[in-house]
Amino acid sequence: MVAIHEPGKQYKVIGTRPIRHDGYDKVTGRAQYGADIRIPGLIWGEVKRSPHAHARVISIDTSAADAMPGVFATVTHADFPTVEERVASGGDSLGSIRQSQNMLADKKVHYRGHVVAAVAATDKNTALEAIEKIEVKYELLPVITNVTDAIADGAAVIVEDLVGDDLGTEIHNTNIARHFRFEFGDLDKGFEDSDIVIEREFNMSMVHQGYIEPHNATAFWTNDGRLTVWSSTQGAFGVRSQTAGLLNLSESQVKVNPVEIGGGFGGKTTVYMPPIAALLSRKSGRPVKLQMDRKSIFEATGPAPGGKMVVKLGVNSAGKMQAATADFKFEAGGYPGSAVGAAAICVMGPYDIPNTRIDGYDIIVNKPKSAAYRAPGSPQAAYAFESVVNEICEQGNFDKLQFRLDNASHEGVRRGDGPIFARLGMQETVQAAIDSDHWKTPLEKNGGDGKVRGRGVASGFWMNGAGKSSCELTLDSDGQVFMNEGSADIGGTRASIAMQAAEYLGLAAEDVHPSIPDTDSIGFTGVTGGSRTTYATGYAAYNAAVAMVEELKKRAAMLWGIDAGDVEFSDNNFSSKTDPELELSWKDLAARLDETGGPVQSTGSVNLSSAGNATATHIVDLEIDPETGKTDVLRYTAVQDVGKAIHPAYAEGQIEGGAVQGIGWALNEEYFVDDDGTMANSSFLDYRMPTSLDLPMIDTIMVEVPSPFGPYGARGVGEVPLAPPLAAIRDAIYDALDIHLYSTPMKPGRILEALKEKSS
Amino acid sequence: MVAIHEPGKQYKVIGTRPIRHDGYDKVTGRAQYGADIRIPGLIWGEVKRSPHAHARVISIDTSAADAMPGVFATVTHADFPTVEERVASGGDSLGSIRQSQNMLADKKVHYRGHVVAAVAATDKNTALEAIEKIEVKYELLPVITNVTDAIADGAAVIVEDLVGDDLGTEIHNTNIARHFRFEFGDLDKGFEDSDIVIEREFNMSMVHQGYIEPHNATAFWTNDGRLTVWSSTQGAFGVRSQTAGLLNLSESQVKVNPVEIGGGFGGKTTVYMPPIAALLSRKSGRPVKLQMDRKSIFEATGPAPGGKMVVKLGVNSAGKMQAATADFKFEAGGYPGSAVGAAAICVMGPYDIPNTRIDGYDIIVNKPKSAAYRAPGSPQAAYAFESVVNEICEQGNFDKLQFRLDNASHEGVRRGDGPIFARLGMQETVQAAIDSDHWKTPLEKNGGDGKVRGRGVASGFWMNGAGKSSCELTLDSDGQVFMNEGSADIGGTRASIAMQAAEYLGLAAEDVHPSIPDTDSIGFTGVTGGSRTTYATGYAAYNAAVAMVEELKKRAAMLWGIDAGDVEFSDNNFSSKTDPELELSWKDLAARLDETGGPVQSTGSVNLSSAGNATATHIVDLEIDPETGKTDVLRYTAVQDVGKAIHPAYAEGQIEGGAVQGIGWALNEEYFVDDDGTMANSSFLDYRMPTSLDLPMIDTIMVEVPSPFGPYGARGVGEVPLAPPLAAIRDAIYDALDIHLYSTPMKPGRILEALKEKSS
Repeated sequence: MVAIHEPGKQYKVIGTRPIRHDGYDKVTGRAQYGADIRIPGLIWGEVKRSPHAHARVISIDTSAADAMPGVFATVTHADFPTVEERVASGGDSLGSIRQSQNMLADKKVHYRGHVVAAVAATDKNTALEAIEKIEVKYELLPVITNVTDAIADGAAVIVEDLVGDDLGTEIHNTNIARHFRFEFGDLDKGFEDSDIVIEREFNMSMVHQGYIEPHNATAFWTNDGRLTVWSSTQGAFGVRSQTAGLLNLSESQVKVNPVEIGGGFGGKTTVYMPPIAALLSRKSGRPVKLQMDRKSIFEATGPAPGGKMVVKLGVNSAGKMQAATADFKFEAGGYPGSAVGAAAICVMGPYDIPNTRIDGYDIIVNKPKSAAYRAPGSPQAAYAFESVVNEICEQGNFDKLQFRLDNASHEGVRRGDGPIFARLGMQETVQAAIDSDHWKTPLEKNGGDGKVRGRGVASGFWMNGAGKSSCELTLDSDGQVFMNEGSADIGGTRASIAMQAAEYLGLAAEDVHPSIPDTDSIGFTGVTGGSRTTYATGYAAYNAAVAMVEELKKRAAMLWGIDAGDVEFSDNNFSSKTDPELELSWKDLAARLDETGGPVQSTGSVNLSSAGNATATHIVDLEIDPETGKTDVLRYTAVQDVGKAIHPAYAEGQIEGGAVQGIGWALNEEYFVDDDGTMANSSFLDYRMPTSLDLPMIDTIMVEVPSPFGPYGARGVGEVPLAPPLAAIRDAIYDALDIHLYSTPMKPGRILEALKEKSS
Repeated sequence: MVAIHEPGKQYKVIGTRPIRHDGYDKVTGRAQYGADIRIPGLIWGEVKRSPHAHARVISIDTSAADAMPGVFATVTHADFPTVEERVASGGDSLGSIRQSQNMLADKKVHYRGHVVAAVAATDKNTALEAIEKIEVKYELLPVITNVTDAIADGAAVIVEDLVGDDLGTEIHNTNIARHFRFEFGDLDKGFEDSDIVIEREFNMSMVHQGYIEPHNATAFWTNDGRLTVWSSTQGAFGVRSQTAGLLNLSESQVKVNPVEIGGGFGGKTTVYMPPIAALLSRKSGRPVKLQMDRKSIFEATGPAPGGKMVVKLGVNSAGKMQAATADFKFEAGGYPGSAVGAAAICVMGPYDIPNTRIDGYDIIVNKPKSAAYRAPGSPQAAYAFESVVNEICEQGNFDKLQFRLDNASHEGVRRGDGPIFARLGMQETVQAAIDSDHWKTPLEKNGGDGKVRGRGVASGFWMNGAGKSSCELTLDSDGQVFMNEGSADIGGTRASIAMQAAEYLGLAAEDVHPSIPDTDSIGFTGVTGGSRTTYATGYAAYNAAVAMVEELKKRAAMLWGIDAGDVEFSDNNFSSKTDPELELSWKDLAARLDETGGPVQSTGSVNLSSAGNATATHIVDLEIDPETGKTDVLRYTAVQDVGKAIHPAYAEGQIEGGAVQGIGWALNEEYFVDDDGTMANSSFLDYRMPTSLDLPMIDTIMVEVPSPFGPYGARGVGEVPLAPPLAAIRDAIYDALDIHLYSTPMKPGRILEALKEKSS
């Protein structure tokens, strides 16, 4: 497999904006979501959740529920395979045990909403009634809701058997699951060489992805040991491997049907319902369906981690960065595993800094186990680091964009966590921001009616994923191509993948028909996440297209009685290199497959180690009412290196969506958690996400610095736009009100508080 | 593609009897049938059927139905695209027009139960009520229920615009759709050289396949022009092409989901419901489901044609066949197209006859349009021809099996319709019958209580289909292989196809997991019919396995740093031809795909012109009560050349099932049609199929004369066993009672009548 992007190449399909293949399905209701799955004999499952954020489970009595008419089964953690059974089958892993504990509490509950038991009954109301009849006795334990309390001396230990890793040393009796460090250069010298050094501490709240569609699962586990699952997910193969691992099945015993997904943003990369549905199905002998409600989604699925971030940056008088440190303490939630690792990778990604140290801490607290949320860790990292960059510019009187350009990372530079950058577009995106109409148009600071305005900027970084993907193509006799690919389609990847095959085949995007079959029916394909999909699965599609053309060359050669090596393909046409009379259009050759051995199918797969990194720089204008602290976004421009926009409209959509979520994080969204661990705002009414009424149109400027790795130079686009908004908005608030905020969300109350502090 | 069967080769998987892959699904209810399909917004469709067998439709008034609350749409033939629209789109064909007329009557009804209108409503009861409100005015026409009346002078013409083909000459104003002839040698000389010449006329009734599951279809036609269909069928691609053709869609606009099938036997190769469901869906904007009831299935789906058959055979005194003629007049039903063509191919298939003529007539009558039924035409042909063979043996005092052996067809002989035989096993099956325990064990003629016993024999022939099939394989990292293939599984073909891949890959049958995806997700694959599936789709699976091994050789070579050409595969193991230290098991290599480019998939397809022909010889012992005419089958042995039994248990099952259906045809089953065209026995209570209580165990003897065409020498097995039973049973009745019957079924009444005639 060789990447073959030809810079400057003009494409016929790549870069156009066809209607997505699944558009009609989704607007007409033909698309099948998890809630739509109805199969004969289906029964309904519900779970019982802990009302306490930290407690020992003394006993669970399901007998009254079991005795209820209409109840088919109840399950608790005891229904999972034991550790011994897992070890015996060679299928054990600590991560899988922790996941099973998170799914159904084992001896302790670690956060409010933690599932303690589940029931399957004829219908939802019966199941809900049965849940009420399950009696759980708890012994309450001290609740820890932030990283500071978690690492304080004498703090209650949440995961009691946790063996923490402190820079390679085992630690016990701790809430610190992991502390790692990246260190390069001579930090002391770097800070010595600096003329301005700033160190700041930032605090962030947990925030939720807020996907509209609730988690759901239907499972049918028959006594041949085969388990069939329908679940809304970002990756059917991930559901397969997680579910198999949790239930001591081999992966090939589990078939996952990837129904359509109503939003994920990282939160649907992990399983909550499928193994519970499976256990209930095994016990009941029936297919079982579960679906979460919104409160449960907030309380007990994985939000983005909050935490505490300390960043220190030194620059010389010429405005060149000399040294930087970052110290991230992230809330893992009730079990180990936050995005702090990715935060460490991303934090210094936009810059060329010779001397650096990055510390990451993964810390257990009595909140839901955090999960991936769009560019996991990067928004938190960028909020802290970019805010310090902006403060440095203020102190040094540097132009904030020129400063970023002067310090921008580029090919050959070392990233904060070690690797050397391949070609990336940080310089180009900053330059495009400088050249933008937005940046060139001065902002009238006076908003009238006492309102004031400010402009802010920030940059961001995401590495972009790669990994494994599979694709299959089938040629129909009318020349249409059907495509099977394994990537869940969240944001238009059916189109962006099909277009990459269509381009090579010389077909219109509409002539390649993508399907996403079950896990039995396509090769392994990684999760739709990490901004890997258009790049990696698109590459697999490209490979399948290449293989199909090679096969068709053989078919044409057969018809012409010449050697396949003498057949050329270009412009949707097969021709002989030697005999100009021998020519067949794609359509005509497709109609003649029967003469040459029958149907033509092809496959393509990849296992890619690297995609091109993504960088972004955002500019935002705000208008703030100092009387109320209310902030309106007036204008927003997101500049991003997309490598090559396969489908510009959907790339823009990703950028706009990322920016909007960032605005939500910045201004409104937070887990408001009481001291007893209760989330006080677990509804969409109280957890305030921005709506279209809160927002201006988001302007996008796509810079195309081709990735050196893929066939068309595409980079992932979905995640990096969530990194810059927080610091950009903070910067605009400063520009408007001359206040620096150090906590998210930067809500009216915090603004008023800072104004009060400033005036006093 | 080269056939590679190695005669005498010992296999590890081929020839074993693993449990079918879909067994658990089918016994536990996990398998999804057409009736199980429930999707959001689904509404119910019903059809209005003609109470007359032949009438002009004066008017159809749907207004009262349209006005009913809960009714979404009504359709009639006028909702099909017009002929002009079809021609304009280049998609027209006469067959498609006739099929649309058969599906929804256009101007005339041709048989009782012919659909005249359809309605879609919120639920079944509302739809049934609406159907009653549709008013249809008819002008009654004379009803023709048999071929003799149909071709009589002055007969009413049923298909008024029919242009018949009489040996290449166009004829008008006729019920004869087609008359064709095969003629070889010198017939006059052949009969002159004969010492015994016998000519007999036979009459047969229509019989129905009697599949348990009713025809059904769910369709969703959205205004992007895409139509999705779920339907129980023997071939999803056939549903796709027929439905697309009828609705003026391109095939790639139609996606067919092949739900499980509850029996087909040829009757589910044509569509009745999908286009009606589609028209109702287009009009209503909703997904629509239809399902037939049993009466409608009998009255208005395609049974096997009845008709009149005349056979003449001459042999010399040495018992060698000299000349034969066959004249078949088959009931096409209400529209052209009976199985008379296949009857002509099969009729003389078992024998080597130098001088032959075969005439076939396809004749329109006021009965349901006939369809394929297991070895279409061959049971009718064999009933007539084998009966004459048996009468010749009686007159010439030839041993009935030795006579068949002496005259058996073999490689190089010309078949009745012209082609020269490749290797086939007629001689071997007759020899195996002669050597059988059944044949060697004398039958006690006295059954006690006045009952008498008789033994009969007959042979049969089926050519076995070939054509196009597709298969895809995916290798999982644990070494398991997932298979997509396009053949509907009626009788265990998931197993027989998977086993052919497993054999080549050195895996257990259970390690290859077959799926049958929708038509978007697999290459074109012909219908499961014509006994083509195990052979053709199995061959595609074999090719896919070969391709997978070739790819894996490359992967092993990559790991070892050697040339792929130096990698060998045998016994589920990869090794280097040159370095004995380099060896990797299948499982170990599968676990290392990530290092060598990622997932491995492969494809295989075929377009085969020929499978090996099938021959069979059956022996049956009957006990008959001459007082009542009741016949019991005492012992039944079916000898058949299966080429190579891929899965012997399922091959035996096919043979047993064919024999049982033949026993039904022979003794009980018939369309009992009144003069007005009403079928008097359109229920399973009155249409008497044999049950397990009526039957002995069927003994099978499988002879393996490898087909020269396929990788493992398999021949189709499903159809030929339906050819011999009728004549064999007739022969046993003669042996018991010394009467010759010339009509089916040979029911008690006919036996008593013949006994009465004989005694008078």
